Amino acid sequence: MCKKSDANYGSAIYGGAVYGEESPIAAFATVPGNSALSVIRCSGKGAIETAASIFSAPEKLKNAQGNTVIHGWIVNAGEKIDEALVSVFRAPKSYTGEDSLDISCHGGSAAGKAVIDALKSSGFRGALPGEFTFRAFMNGKLDLTRCESVMELVSAKTDTGRSHAVTRLSGSLYSEVDEIKKLLVSVLSGAEIYLDYSEDEISAGFDAGASDEIAGRLPNKETALKVLARLKKLQASWRIERIYQEGVSVVIAGRPNAGKSSIFNLILKEDRSIVTEIPGTTRDWIEAWVNIEGIPVRLVDTAGLRDSGDSVEKIGVERSLKILQEADIVLYLIDGEQGVTAEDIEFMKRGERCIFAWNKTDISPVIQPPEFADNIISVSARTGEGLNDLYAAIISAVKPETPEGIFGEPAVSIGTVRQKNLVDDACRALEEALTLAEKEEPLDIIAPLLREAVNALGEITGEVSTADILEEMFSRFCVGK
Amino acid sequence: MCKKSDANYGSAIYGGAVYGEESPIAAFATVPGNSALSVIRCSGKGAIETAASIFSAPEKLKNAQGNTVIHGWIVNAGEKIDEALVSVFRAPKSYTGEDSLDISCHGGSAAGKAVIDALKSSGFRGALPGEFTFRAFMNGKLDLTRCESVMELVSAKTDTGRSHAVTRLSGSLYSEVDEIKKLLVSVLSGAEIYLDYSEDEISAGFDAGASDEIAGRLPNKETALKVLARLKKLQASWRIERIYQEGVSVVIAGRPNAGKSSIFNLILKEDRSIVTEIPGTTRDWIEAWVNIEGIPVRLVDTAGLRDSGDSVEKIGVERSLKILQEADIVLYLIDGEQGVTAEDIEFMKRGERCIFAWNKTDISPVIQPPEFADNIISVSARTGEGLNDLYAAIISAVKPETPEGIFGEPAVSIGTVRQKNLVDDACRALEEALTLAEKEEPLDIIAPLLREAVNALGEITGEVSTADILEEMFSRFCVGK
Repeated sequence: MCKKSDANYGSAIYGGAVYGEESPIAAFATVPGNSALSVIRCSGKGAIETAASIFSAPEKLKNAQGNTVIHGWIVNAGEKIDEALVSVFRAPKSYTGEDSLDISCHGGSAAGKAVIDALKSSGFRGALPGEFTFRAFMNGKLDLTRCESVMELVSAKTDTGRSHAVTRLSGSLYSEVDEIKKLLVSVLSGAEIYLDYSEDEISAGFDAGASDEIAGRLPNKETALKVLARLKKLQASWRIERIYQEGVSVVIAGRPNAGKSSIFNLILKEDRSIVTEIPGTTRDWIEAWVNIEGIPVRLVDTAGLRDSGDSVEKIGVERSLKILQEADIVLYLIDGEQGVTAEDIEFMKRGERCIFAWNKTDISPVIQPPEFADNIISVSARTGEGLNDLYAAIISAVKPETPEGIFGEPAVSIGTVRQKNLVDDACRALEEALTLAEKEEPLDIIAPLLREAVNALGEITGEVSTADILEEMFSRFCVGK
Repeated sequence: MCKKSDANYGSAIYGGAVYGEESPIAAFATVPGNSALSVIRCSGKGAIETAASIFSAPEKLKNAQGNTVIHGWIVNAGEKIDEALVSVFRAPKSYTGEDSLDISCHGGSAAGKAVIDALKSSGFRGALPGEFTFRAFMNGKLDLTRCESVMELVSAKTDTGRSHAVTRLSGSLYSEVDEIKKLLVSVLSGAEIYLDYSEDEISAGFDAGASDEIAGRLPNKETALKVLARLKKLQASWRIERIYQEGVSVVIAGRPNAGKSSIFNLILKEDRSIVTEIPGTTRDWIEAWVNIEGIPVRLVDTAGLRDSGDSVEKIGVERSLKILQEADIVLYLIDGEQGVTAEDIEFMKRGERCIFAWNKTDISPVIQPPEFADNIISVSARTGEGLNDLYAAIISAVKPETPEGIFGEPAVSIGTVRQKNLVDDACRALEEALTLAEKEEPLDIIAPLLREAVNALGEITGEVSTADILEEMFSRFCVGK
């Protein structure tokens, strides 16, 4: 990848500072807290010399080779601030492509803050959100899909999410988009050659009808169709990827005593991952994020709503309905001891987005209600029996069908809405071009559509991009990234 | 410092693992969270080779020199886990004195966790609390005062707290204790020489009275008195240090409308540091940590208590009294518009631990009540006038008088209760020895007391220590330290 021109970016002013400069910047790269270490990342022109001015062994730091670690003290106005290990990186062999340092100082809230203050007093300014990664992009160290994968990685909720982001960080999406784009460029240049040829023919006095005929035939149409198929596959990949990233909500419903809280607690206990129990703001329901086969699931227990005392029952039911409407999936529990009641059947009729489970199967084996052909899962919150069937049903309800079949995980997938929108744009333009080609419309109205598709793909990787879009994108990163 | 014997420690079993081994250990050294990086610290025999087995460039890592940074991927069973920068440290030039690595991977909850899992699968075990620092101590890299200063640094609430901990990390306390100990050893050995001498005399047939006379004179008594003075100074230093570490509570009290919440908010707004507003569990009061001249102050606003409606008034007053009783300082506000009321005078009589402030001085200048000679601070929550006087009054009320005067900051100070108790022990034993010496008691009952004092000082730095004490101490560290 080549270094991007440094002229076109850097217009956005953000708290006084601007993206696109090379001045030395510093920020926490870790969360300050009760931990052994904090890492402060520094980068920019003169970063090493500037940091040396507040280091106990300035010459050692200034003369340090890239990829070495120097031990010493951060000092400010004669006072020892903290003991630190400073990793030195020399341009272009660094994350940003600039001279950089990772200062590893003591954890807690005071030490890192004092080091940041010392850095600022020596000439560093606080980094803007995503500014390190912005600089990495500008210096050709990362294309935009890899930049975005860094943020995806940091915000991954499950190990599957991490794994997908790592694949993109390795360049899987970059390669796929780049290959597709090269194919499309070959189609486009084929068309443009014909365009030039026909103009030559016209200027040479050929009859206009003949040149139109040449222009109407899109060369490499097979390639264009193959490109379209690959773009559609990418498009579809987002349907699954979005679920891994954003997760889905599963709301547990059912009549009082159906065992809603027991199932909720069972799933929480089984899960070894991202459990964080958050009581609903009104304490009417409880929710927690759990990890079901790599999918982050926001599990909501509405027990408090329907089972509450009669005075608040009405409000409870209203809230309950609202939560149910907003759910991606409703897990409706039938009280096995009571069997299917009229109320249950009423609910079952509303059916879609619902998984029905017969609870307490350990004491009352499932009786399949005649109204519903074997789509009831049999579980026991007490023994844990049937829990895997329940998980399978949730996964099957949540995962969309893809070109590679239900559950088929695409090898390459899109990681952000920005990428998805650009793939959509490319698809739309290419489909329109193919439709026009089918109608044998002249190439001079087809070629611009192909160019549009090529540009959209170029924007995905950042080869084609505008300052506005870049700044909007990077400002959503966290500071220190 | 010399390497500690590796035989006597390592008996404490902690979740199956034991302190005192050299096996490779790993743990998060940063707080996993929404940040650019997480750092995982690894140390132990074979740590570099073990980590190489899950690294994309194993030979490069195995052959890496100390204090260098290697870039690559953590891989597990063929799958890329995360991109990482690995800082390599070769024994004895590392924090622990062992072969060590700091793995800097992506932040967030998933990446670091997956790297830890990969490390465990390759042969690392999770580190016990404080185990890295324990190993640093065992390998003679840090004495115990420096070990403890690491934890003090991490938990420092203010920059002053950090600065004091850094001084101890630099070895100030170690040097002072070591110097004092050397002086005391000279006193002790002087006494022991006399003991030997007198025994020789006895065995040579001298008359017993003469030998007793020699034994009763404590040689180097002046040195012993100097040592006692320095120990007393250390003892006193803890009175201030404890305040910097633990902070003090200041509860704002006063009649309704005296301006309690306004003063509370003003102080919060002025403060640029450790503000975290925590509503009291019952929402009757609000508290926040603020930084007043480096002292962490837990500021409590009781406005909700006394000003609440009549039905709960009684409960409110009771709670209010309890909070007031537990306060280090009560900041009692007088409503300047109303002047001093009977209720205010009632409160003033209870006086101790109280600072009285006349609020609303911008509209009603202070009228010094005749009952109290000019000890009322004049403030205005609206204009901020008098706030610095209020801070000075709080500091003056909070800081104990020291041998170096009020506000006098000792150059060397004690950092933990453990150290304080051992200094107390040393003082007590030395004082007893001096009292006996004054009474010209025989040296053979004085010398053991001097030995006791020397041992207590040796325990502070860790020269003399037992496995029990070490394990108790390090298990209170955080994991990863």
